[in-house]
Amino acid sequence: MSTASLLILAGDGIGPEVMAEVRKIIDWYGAKRDLAFDVSEDLVGGAAYDVHGVPLADETMAKAQAVDAVLLGAVGGPKYDTLDFSLKPERGLLRLRKEMDLFANLRPAQCFDALADFSSLKKDIVAGLDIMIVRELTSGVYFGEPRGIHKEGNERVGINTQRYTESEIARVARSAFELAKKRGNKVCSMEKANVMESGILWRDVVTEIHAAEYADVELSHMYADAGAMQLVRAPKQFDVIVTDNLFGDLLSDAAAMLTGSLGMLPSASLGLPMENGRPKALYEPVHGSAPDIAGQGKANPCACILSFAMALRYSFDQGAEADRLEAAVNQVLAQGIRTADLMQAGDTAPASTSQMGDAVIAAL
Amino acid sequence: MSTASLLILAGDGIGPEVMAEVRKIIDWYGAKRDLAFDVSEDLVGGAAYDVHGVPLADETMAKAQAVDAVLLGAVGGPKYDTLDFSLKPERGLLRLRKEMDLFANLRPAQCFDALADFSSLKKDIVAGLDIMIVRELTSGVYFGEPRGIHKEGNERVGINTQRYTESEIARVARSAFELAKKRGNKVCSMEKANVMESGILWRDVVTEIHAAEYADVELSHMYADAGAMQLVRAPKQFDVIVTDNLFGDLLSDAAAMLTGSLGMLPSASLGLPMENGRPKALYEPVHGSAPDIAGQGKANPCACILSFAMALRYSFDQGAEADRLEAAVNQVLAQGIRTADLMQAGDTAPASTSQMGDAVIAAL
Ligand SMILES: CC(C)[C@H](C(=O)O)[C@@H](O)C(=O)O
Ligand SMILES: CC(C)[C@H](C(=O)O)[C@@H](O)C(=O)O
Repeated sequence: MSTASLLILAGDGIGPEVMAEVRKIIDWYGAKRDLAFDVSEDLVGGAAYDVHGVPLADETMAKAQAVDAVLLGAVGGPKYDTLDFSLKPERGLLRLRKEMDLFANLRPAQCFDALADFSSLKKDIVAGLDIMIVRELTSGVYFGEPRGIHKEGNERVGINTQRYTESEIARVARSAFELAKKRGNKVCSMEKANVMESGILWRDVVTEIHAAEYADVELSHMYADAGAMQLVRAPKQFDVIVTDNLFGDLLSDAAAMLTGSLGMLPSASLGLPMENGRPKALYEPVHGSAPDIAGQGKANPCACILSFAMALRYSFDQGAEADRLEAAVNQVLAQGIRTADLMQAGDTAPASTSQMGDAVIAAL
Repeated sequence: MSTASLLILAGDGIGPEVMAEVRKIIDWYGAKRDLAFDVSEDLVGGAAYDVHGVPLADETMAKAQAVDAVLLGAVGGPKYDTLDFSLKPERGLLRLRKEMDLFANLRPAQCFDALADFSSLKKDIVAGLDIMIVRELTSGVYFGEPRGIHKEGNERVGINTQRYTESEIARVARSAFELAKKRGNKVCSMEKANVMESGILWRDVVTEIHAAEYADVELSHMYADAGAMQLVRAPKQFDVIVTDNLFGDLLSDAAAMLTGSLGMLPSASLGLPMENGRPKALYEPVHGSAPDIAGQGKANPCACILSFAMALRYSFDQGAEADRLEAAVNQVLAQGIRTADLMQAGDTAPASTSQMGDAVIAAL
């Protein structure tokens, strides 16, 4: 493989700590597996605001557009809670998603065998769980216009717009069907077609793409409220779920929590292919910036490490190396080496963030 | 109490079956407790469409406006799936909510002691659970304009509008604070203020109402995605949750499923006080029309019976009688008399819908 370029945006809170472990893994790949990456680093979120006065500088945006893949840690923290909407750390992340046109957000909700006891759900309900949620990430109510707060008479009115075009729905549906073909061959599409016209269009377009291009994949439709219920009741009924930006936000978080190990869950946000055939891509852990434990060396780096594994798979066509890295993480867990979030009553001392990273490298 | 008027809209699927049991209870109250109700019945949903060609006839709407309380069974079924959006069974229910201005939808998620084993969550996570979700019911993306599907160039575009006014938020916030004062004195408000301006307004108005009128109630705010996570992880942290129409739809369904006994959960939708001081009100079970078991005498009537208990409490100021009815349902469950949805391996034959209703009356 020719040297690939990576931009690391560690961000806020525990972002820099977990990303430091990913750096070690990247270096290991360069030294031991002849997979060298050209790595640069920059700022996003509150960290960028502190330096540039904006949550993502234009130069950083330009770099993100130019590299083969972006790795992001986390954004946000109480320090920035009172900032104006347009300056909040989240806007940096949303700008990356929108301008890189990362329309397909892949969020696996997988229950790690060694960790099935950590779920608040009964073990038999979640053991072996392996769902892939494909969330539309560049449209819907997150970006629709008109939006804002204005005055009508003497009261304020808040407005946002849910807006989906046919082609926006079609392309994320295709991503979901393609993924399903490599997995359980089943897609469940979720919306509220019973109350929203945008949901009717969503259902119609998914149905059309299915009939025309993926008739061999099993397709079902579910209202998003029923989907939330079914995720709690019997999550193993699902293989791939495809849904819009806002429903995907809630449903993927609920699904993540089913596994009981938020500190383990990666995500990939993919866009259109670039000239070199690689998709525009950003990889990030599902967990947030966790300001309560930031800077203490307690954070679990696995979600961020597994996000890099997704980068190996989806950006660099290194499926075998991704498997190897995932297996290494599993092995470390099975050995009982765990960060504080995965400790149970009676367990011995937890591993620190860097001990966890070192253990993964040892397992590699 | 002067004779109060009730309109029963049994609707579709299992609606008529479960409502038949509520009728027995109403009759019992008339005969034994000197609480006579003037009961009328009419059609809603698919049942109304079959007769009138619309899911709610104007005369039925007028009746609903005139009575002291409406009891609704359920709407919807596969037979009506291909109907035009404006004729779907759901539109009948949405018209009732909107025209009666039932802005506060109270959805208790309570785990019945006798049924804690039915949850997909571990028993210690849900035993004793008692949350009240207050969902805004007459605004937001359900009703906002513009909406619809139109063509732009040669592709379709689907649009819905999330719109909240200050006064719409304020009145539902007040309902939530009032309820909290009679319960655990804690309100958690959920929105996506980090990505939606309507969420910022929501958070601001809730905060203002709290400071000005309910400073003695504990208030917290949570993003709705984190809320979905926390409901799955540790639901007992919540007392009253207040949220908008769409988030409330998903979150209340997830919360309902936590209890493991959807067939047990009632709801109340309340509006402004009428001339006689009673709020406009509609009561309905949280479960749907369950077409798969309709007409078989298998449905659990408890959610609908407990919805009538909510009517006794919120419309007719008969809190003691509501307690009595709830206690009767609990007693029947504790005796092991249960419908098919609440059977466990090794249990004897399930009770039928009407056996369950009779058992509640015997317990009364
Ligand atoms: C941080 C926030 C803007 C973001 C979102 O709402 O999309 C987060 O919740 C996520 O799911 O990645
Ligand atoms: C039937 C449907 C219109 C309704 C809703 O979406 O509000 C239902 O899901 C509910 O929660 O009462």
